[in-house]
Amino acid sequence: MLNFALIHGSWRTGANWTPVVGHLHQAGHQAFAPTVLGHGEGVEKRVNHVQQVDDLVNQLIQRNLHDIVLVGHSSAGTLIARLAEELPDRIRRLVFWNAFVLQRGNCLLDEVPPHLRALFEGQVAASSDGSIMLPYPIWREAFINDADEAFAKSSYDSLSTEPYQPHMDKLDLERFYATQIPKSYLNATEDHALPQGEWGWHPRMSSRLGLFRLVQMPGSHEVIFTNPGGLAAKLIEAGRD
Amino acid sequence: MLNFALIHGSWRTGANWTPVVGHLHQAGHQAFAPTVLGHGEGVEKRVNHVQQVDDLVNQLIQRNLHDIVLVGHSSAGTLIARLAEELPDRIRRLVFWNAFVLQRGNCLLDEVPPHLRALFEGQVAASSDGSIMLPYPIWREAFINDADEAFAKSSYDSLSTEPYQPHMDKLDLERFYATQIPKSYLNATEDHALPQGEWGWHPRMSSRLGLFRLVQMPGSHEVIFTNPGGLAAKLIEAGRD
Amino acid sequence: MLNFALIHGSWRTGANWTPVVGHLHQAGHQAFAPTVLGHGEGVEKRVNHVQQVDDLVNQLIQRNLHDIVLVGHSSAGTLIARLAEELPDRIRRLVFWNAFVLQRGNCLLDEVPPHLRALFEGQVAASSDGSIMLPYPIWREAFINDADEAFAKSSYDSLSTEPYQPHMDKLDLERFYATQIPKSYLNATEDHALPQGEWGWHPRMSSRLGLFRLVQMPGSHEVIFTNPGGLAAKLIEAGRD
Repeated sequence: MLNFALIHGSWRTGANWTPVVGHLHQAGHQAFAPTVLGHGEGVEKRVNHVQQVDDLVNQLIQRNLHDIVLVGHSSAGTLIARLAEELPDRIRRLVFWNAFVLQRGNCLLDEVPPHLRALFEGQVAASSDGSIMLPYPIWREAFINDADEAFAKSSYDSLSTEPYQPHMDKLDLERFYATQIPKSYLNATEDHALPQGEWGWHPRMSSRLGLFRLVQMPGSHEVIFTNPGGLAAKLIEAGRD
Repeated sequence: MLNFALIHGSWRTGANWTPVVGHLHQAGHQAFAPTVLGHGEGVEKRVNHVQQVDDLVNQLIQRNLHDIVLVGHSSAGTLIARLAEELPDRIRRLVFWNAFVLQRGNCLLDEVPPHLRALFEGQVAASSDGSIMLPYPIWREAFINDADEAFAKSSYDSLSTEPYQPHMDKLDLERFYATQIPKSYLNATEDHALPQGEWGWHPRMSSRLGLFRLVQMPGSHEVIFTNPGGLAAKLIEAGRD
Repeated sequence: MLNFALIHGSWRTGANWTPVVGHLHQAGHQAFAPTVLGHGEGVEKRVNHVQQVDDLVNQLIQRNLHDIVLVGHSSAGTLIARLAEELPDRIRRLVFWNAFVLQRGNCLLDEVPPHLRALFEGQVAASSDGSIMLPYPIWREAFINDADEAFAKSSYDSLSTEPYQPHMDKLDLERFYATQIPKSYLNATEDHALPQGEWGWHPRMSSRLGLFRLVQMPGSHEVIFTNPGGLAAKLIEAGRD
């Protein structure tokens, strides 16, 4: 029995994990899917990375979780790396699912292609609350490329704005890069939310983990929507000892 | 319902699409598969890229096609890029299937590895009609690597010589690189007609499209022969809105 | 009917091929799986690459094998390249399965990432018989990443120490790089025994073969343990004419 904690990526909340959690329960595992600070409708968007980490630390401690298989999707790679520094004794394994593994001293924006950074900088400059939103055409073509149009639209309608400050916050990560916690990288082979190749997830991000377990599955950046059962199966493969 | 126009690659004709067209019809779609000028047995081989584009423009207009999902395989990537410049209002989406996406000002030969360019240059120098032919060992090992020998041979027998001049013609492509027509790239994961890596199809060619939808399938450069049903399914996934 | 000779990689013996040989027999093929000199329990570990090649030459001649589909896994890529030089008239095709293809004049250690080379150099310096052993965490995460923990452990228990000298022996390989024997490369897509990317198997090693047939399958470096039936099917696909 594995104790999963599932940390969502940008523009969504913990509720997006519900179908995956169902599949994990059916397979005999526990799973907790908190919402990261600043995510969802009607909440304060002016938060930073330190506040997000502090809040997640509190949520995991309040649930009295131990032996955690800590999963981070996409931008949450930055969060689980920090949680490994804050709660090393509670984490059994880190699973980066098409997630950022920042180089020491970088912020997330340092690791995205210039055209994406420019897009987001333009959005935040025009924003009244320091948040950004993914344009639908990018969602449809580069994020959920394995869905049909109706499903691409309905899933897009579930997204909400993303706090920008955490993506500008530089992370030291000295303790993360020294940790002995085992690590896995789950890569969906048609994920090109980061363009494959020079700027891609794998092996660019994954190789920074040192020794890690590689697990792959077919699908886009959004198998949480398009294939939650397949994602759950691969999270188990990535998360087991 | 999608309106496909399917443009074949080198050494073949529109007839090679027949099984794929059948699968597309069964799925409720329309498909037109013209033969590119200079292809097939007993035709004039001394044609250039401008003539090929003009002829395809005429064929598409004569069929009164609109809302076209325009698919180009391999060398036909150069043709659909030009058709996007000539018929922008008739094209709903461009689908590059393991196809060349030329950098501005290049010809196709500028984008192939030196050993292939040298091979073709030797062939055309010895040709009486300015055409080239793919040697069987390259076909068998690098193009149709997923077939057995009997099928590799029978499919090879269906090929015919390829006009060389179009592959030497430099293309400006300024309007193609400015177009807002949506684009997809379909990549067969065992395709090594262009060697994977530095000279490969994906992400080298695909990344030049800017925002595009990535679709992948198992198989060689010749899934049109070895898996026409699977190819049709993936063309629908790549071609839909 | 194909005549396979199957050459195992480091830390194992010919006996590891038994399930694969069974599947090949069932499909109507012959298969011989010799043990490479210096491998297994209770044997002399101080052997070099020349002795290993000489011994394999003798084993193949004594079995009176011809038209051999010669398969090399991992480090055995160095052995089948040399056998192609010693027995060119007996080999019908070379199949490199996630195997080293050394650049001319290199030894195997010249082709592995610095952290692996340092690990092995430390081990051999502390060894009483000039051998090395793969640490379990590397086996579990980077070699047999597609197995569960129980299977990872039981398969690890079947391994034995590996002679080190052959991996330091530089190979000229002039005749190998001139041979016309057909070649295939079988790549398991989740194999990261060599880290994917800059130091990976494919396309880094495979591209050195010149014209070759690419075959891929899902799985880790150890599909010989985790999927012997699937491996046999792909060896047939890679080995046929």
